[in-house]
Amino acid sequence: MLAPARIGDPIAAVDTPALMLDLDAFEANLRAVHAAVAASGLALRAHAKAHKCVEIARRQVAAGAVGLCCQKVAEAEVFVAGGIRDVLVSNQVIGAAKLRRLARLSQQALIGVCVDHPQQVRALADALAQEGGCIEVLIEVDVGGGRCGVIGEAAVLELAALVAAHAPVLRLRGLQAYHGRAQHRRTPEERREAIAAAAAAAAAARDALRAAGHDCPVVTGAGTGTYPLEAATGVYTEVQPGSYVLMDADYFANQPDPQAPALRQALTVHCQVISERPGQVVLDAGLKAFSVDSGLPVPLAEGWRAVSISDEHLVLRPSGEGARATLRLGDTLSVVPGHCDPTVNLHDHLVAHRAGRVEAVWPVDARGALT
Amino acid sequence: MLAPARIGDPIAAVDTPALMLDLDAFEANLRAVHAAVAASGLALRAHAKAHKCVEIARRQVAAGAVGLCCQKVAEAEVFVAGGIRDVLVSNQVIGAAKLRRLARLSQQALIGVCVDHPQQVRALADALAQEGGCIEVLIEVDVGGGRCGVIGEAAVLELAALVAAHAPVLRLRGLQAYHGRAQHRRTPEERREAIAAAAAAAAAARDALRAAGHDCPVVTGAGTGTYPLEAATGVYTEVQPGSYVLMDADYFANQPDPQAPALRQALTVHCQVISERPGQVVLDAGLKAFSVDSGLPVPLAEGWRAVSISDEHLVLRPSGEGARATLRLGDTLSVVPGHCDPTVNLHDHLVAHRAGRVEAVWPVDARGALT
Repeated sequence: MLAPARIGDPIAAVDTPALMLDLDAFEANLRAVHAAVAASGLALRAHAKAHKCVEIARRQVAAGAVGLCCQKVAEAEVFVAGGIRDVLVSNQVIGAAKLRRLARLSQQALIGVCVDHPQQVRALADALAQEGGCIEVLIEVDVGGGRCGVIGEAAVLELAALVAAHAPVLRLRGLQAYHGRAQHRRTPEERREAIAAAAAAAAAARDALRAAGHDCPVVTGAGTGTYPLEAATGVYTEVQPGSYVLMDADYFANQPDPQAPALRQALTVHCQVISERPGQVVLDAGLKAFSVDSGLPVPLAEGWRAVSISDEHLVLRPSGEGARATLRLGDTLSVVPGHCDPTVNLHDHLVAHRAGRVEAVWPVDARGALT
Repeated sequence: MLAPARIGDPIAAVDTPALMLDLDAFEANLRAVHAAVAASGLALRAHAKAHKCVEIARRQVAAGAVGLCCQKVAEAEVFVAGGIRDVLVSNQVIGAAKLRRLARLSQQALIGVCVDHPQQVRALADALAQEGGCIEVLIEVDVGGGRCGVIGEAAVLELAALVAAHAPVLRLRGLQAYHGRAQHRRTPEERREAIAAAAAAAAAARDALRAAGHDCPVVTGAGTGTYPLEAATGVYTEVQPGSYVLMDADYFANQPDPQAPALRQALTVHCQVISERPGQVVLDAGLKAFSVDSGLPVPLAEGWRAVSISDEHLVLRPSGEGARATLRLGDTLSVVPGHCDPTVNLHDHLVAHRAGRVEAVWPVDARGALT
């Protein structure tokens, strides 16, 4: 699709709806989180599923990230083509065609992948035997998410032995121990409790590996909501925040951890009022511009709140008696997405702005990279 | 992104996740709805916001649709470029750049647009004065949706007079009277009541126009959930169903209207099991492959139901004690989206299949056409 802005345009001239990145906020978040993780002595592997943008990935690596995570082989292909030399697919991959693509990719960059079943390991080894290449494997441990990952040391050891049996094309890097559900527990205490349990499960798996003679150089996981907690456990060696460079309304609904650096809202959608009536305005951005899995978007217009959304419309009403009804037909405004990752995936371009002007228009390179 | 299938592939060879269209079901739905509307003597203007696909639009026109609706100027541009000669933007458009694009488009095809405020009419006339072209205007009446549209005959007459004052570049086609919320009221009685009220409001607006000496040749609206009701009112001259060619779980949750032809589920997402454990499997398609605004997707795997979704995962569990746990790691299956329109918008390709094989791969041409 046509880019909604040109470099140098004032923000008011950006076509609506458009996905916008406040560069000052983005850079402040990048500096703050990378500095905090570096001070903890851990590696930072930035999760690119949040932004899907090669330009952002390059800035993360330039700011010290050891590499990226992504969730899909197709995403990894985009980032390797964009010059990123170290990509972990922090997810399970099965299916011969996908695994052959991953094997080919491993001939251009350092590739890691997660496993939680022996069949995945065997299929991966088969693909490498056919295509060449070598891949580093992380055994995913279910540390509380209840989604993917093995439970218990016996399953970890079975997978480690199977990986070892396929050396040198497979090599065990360590453990994936991500607790997704903990990211949005609202109080620091709830998050601390969840991550303490996750770290205990990860430590048990790591110790079992070492006792059985396996190396376990890496224990990786953590997101924007909890990474200082994982960093403080002494178990994790690497953290995987992704949303930190963008942020969203759901993350801001968390009570902040006093130990974590404060982050700024960098991502918004620039919208326009296309219809007005007393006590209501309608914006030109709905379910095809915002993902609502984590709640309605939040307009940055004092005294207004979103009350409903449909395919192409967001309806705003005054949030209280005292609200000033200053929004009028044709006005533009910024709206914060409820959940950044699937919202970014709806847009082809990210309009990077600073001091009221468009500084760059970046493609969302891996948008739609589903396979 | 790379197409997930090649023509002639068996469905099992289609890469996952992939958006799939069952051609037998699609064609049966197309025939059934077009025949029912033709028998009522109304025009059918198919809503392309649901499928965003030029190939489907061509088939709708070949099956008798007078033209298309869409919601965005950028969508209209895609469909006009694809050869559709009659496109209604069934939405409000404001913003000089967008209106100039619409004016240019009106030099290639018959273009209609909705208005609910005098400022939109003036801005449209300004754009046409600058760019040339002429556009047909529909005054949108709020017939119960509480979103866009005017309320009351005075507002209708004010807009009609303003349109008339800008003849010949603007011409009043009639009324847009779409009741979006009525589409998913679950019982036929609730839908009948909502559409009776909508038709009464539309008739009052039409009669006021005629009494004031304006033509009102078209009263248009209706969706897949209610079009037989609008067709039976004697007020509407045109209906705008969109989802009927695809269908989704939310439409199937409606109690069917005994007067409406039965429709089949044509749209699914082909998914793969990437992780398994006792009592649970995880599929490789989450919020970036399914829109969940109208509920979780529904797996076509007897005895399984979706229990949670995250960015790239859908977790299924057995739905009851008696469920047979036949899904295993690597298995592929079809999953019905909760809501078709925003789900289609997540995918670059639609894999059209029949008798177990891929018959065509169609681009979702207007995916991401937000402006």
